[in-house]
Amino acid sequence: MIFGESKVSCAELVVIGDEVISGLILDRNSQYLGEKIHELGIEVSRVTTVGDTALVIEDCVKLALQRSDWVVVTGGLGATHDDITKSVLLKVFECGLKKDYKVARMLEAKYQACSREVPDNLRSQWEVPEKADILYNEKGTAPGFKMKKGKCVLFSLPGVPLEMQYLFEKFVAPEMAGQTNKTFLHRLIKTTGLSESDLWAKVGPLEGIQRKATIASLPSHLGVRIRISLLADSKVEGELRLDEVERFLTKQLFNYIYGRDDDEIEAKVGSLLLEKSLTLSTAESCTGGLIGHRLTQVSGSSDYFKEGVIVYSNDAKIKRLQVDSKLIDEFGAVSDPVARAMAKGVCLMTGADIGVSVTGIAGPSGGSDLKPVGLTYIAVHDQSGTYCRKFIFTHDRIKNKERSAQAALNLVRLRLQGRLEN
Amino acid sequence: MIFGESKVSCAELVVIGDEVISGLILDRNSQYLGEKIHELGIEVSRVTTVGDTALVIEDCVKLALQRSDWVVVTGGLGATHDDITKSVLLKVFECGLKKDYKVARMLEAKYQACSREVPDNLRSQWEVPEKADILYNEKGTAPGFKMKKGKCVLFSLPGVPLEMQYLFEKFVAPEMAGQTNKTFLHRLIKTTGLSESDLWAKVGPLEGIQRKATIASLPSHLGVRIRISLLADSKVEGELRLDEVERFLTKQLFNYIYGRDDDEIEAKVGSLLLEKSLTLSTAESCTGGLIGHRLTQVSGSSDYFKEGVIVYSNDAKIKRLQVDSKLIDEFGAVSDPVARAMAKGVCLMTGADIGVSVTGIAGPSGGSDLKPVGLTYIAVHDQSGTYCRKFIFTHDRIKNKERSAQAALNLVRLRLQGRLEN
Repeated sequence: MIFGESKVSCAELVVIGDEVISGLILDRNSQYLGEKIHELGIEVSRVTTVGDTALVIEDCVKLALQRSDWVVVTGGLGATHDDITKSVLLKVFECGLKKDYKVARMLEAKYQACSREVPDNLRSQWEVPEKADILYNEKGTAPGFKMKKGKCVLFSLPGVPLEMQYLFEKFVAPEMAGQTNKTFLHRLIKTTGLSESDLWAKVGPLEGIQRKATIASLPSHLGVRIRISLLADSKVEGELRLDEVERFLTKQLFNYIYGRDDDEIEAKVGSLLLEKSLTLSTAESCTGGLIGHRLTQVSGSSDYFKEGVIVYSNDAKIKRLQVDSKLIDEFGAVSDPVARAMAKGVCLMTGADIGVSVTGIAGPSGGSDLKPVGLTYIAVHDQSGTYCRKFIFTHDRIKNKERSAQAALNLVRLRLQGRLEN
Repeated sequence: MIFGESKVSCAELVVIGDEVISGLILDRNSQYLGEKIHELGIEVSRVTTVGDTALVIEDCVKLALQRSDWVVVTGGLGATHDDITKSVLLKVFECGLKKDYKVARMLEAKYQACSREVPDNLRSQWEVPEKADILYNEKGTAPGFKMKKGKCVLFSLPGVPLEMQYLFEKFVAPEMAGQTNKTFLHRLIKTTGLSESDLWAKVGPLEGIQRKATIASLPSHLGVRIRISLLADSKVEGELRLDEVERFLTKQLFNYIYGRDDDEIEAKVGSLLLEKSLTLSTAESCTGGLIGHRLTQVSGSSDYFKEGVIVYSNDAKIKRLQVDSKLIDEFGAVSDPVARAMAKGVCLMTGADIGVSVTGIAGPSGGSDLKPVGLTYIAVHDQSGTYCRKFIFTHDRIKNKERSAQAALNLVRLRLQGRLEN
């Protein structure tokens, strides 16, 4: 869902590769470029993806040059037989090749470092279009090109994401940014625990605030991200407007917001634990280790992540976590009392300050009328007691595991922030 | 890398959505369609992605209709103000709207089921282009359309992946398949443990075999997938050729191949364990639970996955797994002897038949000259003894964790297949 709209000059992307067009690989470059160029206040009007066929590439590039202020071409700059972007550019811009000595020196230096000669097939990389400015590539062997036709500027970049991103940041973005006197700003507000429609119902009417910025919501099974974006006369003026919109949203969504932009819940939990000098242990049944995996994605997590156990079987729950077997007999392994006993048990076992536990039925089998697939109990235990919440997730096994881990990390966050009573 | 090539009639995709073009969401629909259509033996020549702008959409659709045998449009069929595909189709095909009573009945039934009236904004969904055949959508509220212009057939599908895939499989694929008398077949051979260049060096010259099929390699940090594809006169003839190419590759890559098509190592490990009635436990340090998480992605894994421990600290390694503290003092926590002791320890602790352990430095900090970031020891223990291998991974923290988990699962697979001696 997008509320409001705001755009300026216009760019097109041309993505080249048989592997992309036949679905062999997923193109992430155009998402990256779309987002970055959009952030610079330039409208991306078209993305055209084509295979390694010279005539089709030529046709696309020519059309794009006629229609747009900027064209960014990715792919087809390697040194194998199916890399033909360079020869298409020679035809479109009507020029020949010249040797670029800096590209040659960079290649030679790279191979000298491992005491090798530049392979024959790579020598073609220092032959560049006469009319091109060279975008020297420190991250790979294929240089990029900048070429002009009338008012339109074309950039040709390699398809390898790392190299493409490096050249875009170093050469393309600065040039594009110089062309607009407005500043494009955006901010991502990250929420979890509410569906997209419940979230907007909770926020209420947007009429007033919508004039301040474009507001878009991006739902996934892990939560809804809200993107606020705007074109401002200055960074200061824009940040003030972003703050105003964020304050408006926070008023209604306080407990559901866990961060901004690149924030992840596992990192938020980590910084709260560090701040309070507390340690955490995990007792996972249906999530199978995913909570531990997410916690340890954060560098430095060994400072607060004490230990984890993956206790799939009843036996392991009893032996490892001292869960009373009578509880399992009476209520079943997927139940409120067992989740509580697991969270408490993992604290006692490992000496951690906080324990979090998950027990649930991820599916597709194992469900019953009384305990359907997706039924999950998550408990958080600390010295002030134990909190437990029941969830019913309605996805497949893999997404149910992901939602369970997300909800568990979120409950730990809320507990650490003092927003979760027993 | 792609060796060989083989194609027939021609399709174009038009992807519609401001969210896609501004990089707000990643378009996976065109990968799905590219792959499926390619499998039907039809060449996808162009994918054009555009925003929610009527004139641009119209221009794209018109060009695609001129150039191609098939056009598949995705997106813009919802009932909000920015969904304008239908009105563009009316213009391109020069026709008006009519009410489709079946769409109306389906909508009414859907809302009756939860005792509600069809909301006003959704009533427009039963107004369809007069010249369209309707693709009735059981998975959502927006119907798809099939329309003809000269020899070209256009399909307009909703952008929601689940609905798009449902309509494609039910209506589009059968129609496309009827147009070619060749059968397109393909097979994915999945390998791990070799880089792309080492793999092809090991396989040797492809000259002979390359005439049998198109062979493409798709590298990632977890391994190289090899895709064999061909157009055959019949399924039987094609399968024989696929078998021949697979046999050729298997001769050289035997130990590195873990499966075909959708096979994952964790499922392969699972089926080997079930076959031999053995159980597995995990002792993870740097992977933090990822191995357990992957094992439990497989439904039914509770039958063989006994238990897991996430032992980040030395203390936990000693207390939980009875690792001798002298080993840690003498060799360090990231060492061959400690990995072996962990694998053995987790077997003793949990009573599993097989134990797998990982201890490593995922990075970015924690490395030294002697023990660089990426250094990882993985051990597998069973009744016949302990095997341990040293790796040095050279990626970032997150990819190093992923490679470690992949290598650990692969070593368990090889051990279970009797291909890993102590």
